Amino acid sequence: MTFETLKKHKTFAGETIFCRHESSSTRTSMAFSAFLPVDIKKIDSAIIWLSGLTCTEENFITKAGAQFFLQNTSTMIICPDTSPRRLDLPGEHDSYDFGSGAGFYLNARTEYFKDHYQMYDYITCDLIELLRNDFGINKFSISGHSMGGHGALVLGLKEPQIFSSISAFSPIVNPTQCPWGQKAFQGYLGDDKQLWKQYDACELLKTGKSSEAPLLVDQGLNDEFYPQQLLTENLEIVCKENGQAIDLSFHKGYDHSYYFISTFIEKHIRFHLNYLS
Amino acid sequence: MTFETLKKHKTFAGETIFCRHESSSTRTSMAFSAFLPVDIKKIDSAIIWLSGLTCTEENFITKAGAQFFLQNTSTMIICPDTSPRRLDLPGEHDSYDFGSGAGFYLNARTEYFKDHYQMYDYITCDLIELLRNDFGINKFSISGHSMGGHGALVLGLKEPQIFSSISAFSPIVNPTQCPWGQKAFQGYLGDDKQLWKQYDACELLKTGKSSEAPLLVDQGLNDEFYPQQLLTENLEIVCKENGQAIDLSFHKGYDHSYYFISTFIEKHIRFHLNYLS
Repeated sequence: MTFETLKKHKTFAGETIFCRHESSSTRTSMAFSAFLPVDIKKIDSAIIWLSGLTCTEENFITKAGAQFFLQNTSTMIICPDTSPRRLDLPGEHDSYDFGSGAGFYLNARTEYFKDHYQMYDYITCDLIELLRNDFGINKFSISGHSMGGHGALVLGLKEPQIFSSISAFSPIVNPTQCPWGQKAFQGYLGDDKQLWKQYDACELLKTGKSSEAPLLVDQGLNDEFYPQQLLTENLEIVCKENGQAIDLSFHKGYDHSYYFISTFIEKHIRFHLNYLS
Repeated sequence: MTFETLKKHKTFAGETIFCRHESSSTRTSMAFSAFLPVDIKKIDSAIIWLSGLTCTEENFITKAGAQFFLQNTSTMIICPDTSPRRLDLPGEHDSYDFGSGAGFYLNARTEYFKDHYQMYDYITCDLIELLRNDFGINKFSISGHSMGGHGALVLGLKEPQIFSSISAFSPIVNPTQCPWGQKAFQGYLGDDKQLWKQYDACELLKTGKSSEAPLLVDQGLNDEFYPQQLLTENLEIVCKENGQAIDLSFHKGYDHSYYFISTFIEKHIRFHLNYLS
């Protein structure tokens, strides 16, 4: 095993685990949680869950209620932390939407951050390699929430050979056009706006990136960040214009919280199980 | 309404709410969370959930996954905080197992604490009155975890005219005989050991207190506090000796955490729904 299990809790007939491993991409140790619904030898596929701003590896696995719907399947869910930790880069801990807890699932190019904030490579290389080698898995899907919804869309669209299906809750779909994305991309990528587009789901779809499976997206209409940070309609338009199938639902009354996620997590899990089986 | 709703989150077809109200028992404002599965006018019964040491009104409602199993029923769940807050009594904040976050669901008699730590009256009078008056409910069940499992057993056995059914996860069943209970009872009740027995489920059963419904109790065998703090077998023995029906299950591998609770919460909810309908 290339990871260390710090805590494990029997959950349904499986285990919820909290782990650390060394990442060559971030040059730090990285934390993740996971739910293994059955014995590790029987697991054949994984959903990677990417969390939102301020989250750690703990939020989803404690709050979403996903374990119930994965029990007795052969699919695990793995939830990486949202950034490297235990660093003290300039400005890294000054705000909730940049630096620690806000890695934005990209490979940084700016001074200081480029040495560690390589979250794109961390997920698509290090974490996938760990799942292949230590869990014997070669079927993956990806999902996430908010900043992690952005991550799921971007990683899924850019790496279709890895990910069978993509879903997102309340994703930041067009980060080059919203305050959260602009702040993060400026800080991590600098002034090159062409580079920004490589981490923007709407821009990627415009250049022909696509997913064989339809994109599954759920969005609450009482979400405090909708529409200005999320720009959900932009994804709908660009999918239509570029022939990408999308199953996008707006839900009256729901907000940006884990109460929304817990309400619709069953739908997302069943969607991914269908493409992983 | 005699309570103020601070936050509400649409969850399934209902709402998870976070509230405050004034308690005449604790002479403080008290916090609670609740899940209302349907419109408030259609709700006809409530499960009161009592949390364990260090918890607030938030732990259960975010972590247990209970909402899924209550959706589309007419039964709400309400989760009060575990002690008065915003006080600064001598020793109140010095340890995790006494004072704030550790009210033990009793009426304190010792100096300082007697003026506010009246959690027994808070639950059985103030909270029940709020449920009757503001929610129009007159059918109640009670459940809880650890210190809250102790609370559920004690309040349920002493107030059978209020509570239709009692269940507990990993309860402290015999607090007069374990370190947690002895510390708390000494601090809240003083030296009178006869008084201690009024808040001990095993002692109450010995004096003839009983529940018409069987007691439902689940206990993990990998629980870090079993057996020394929980003394589960003592409850089994005293139930047998006093003719109290009990459905007690031990579960290999499960610990004291919310992962254990989330695994078996469906069973407890179905049990209470049966007695509330």
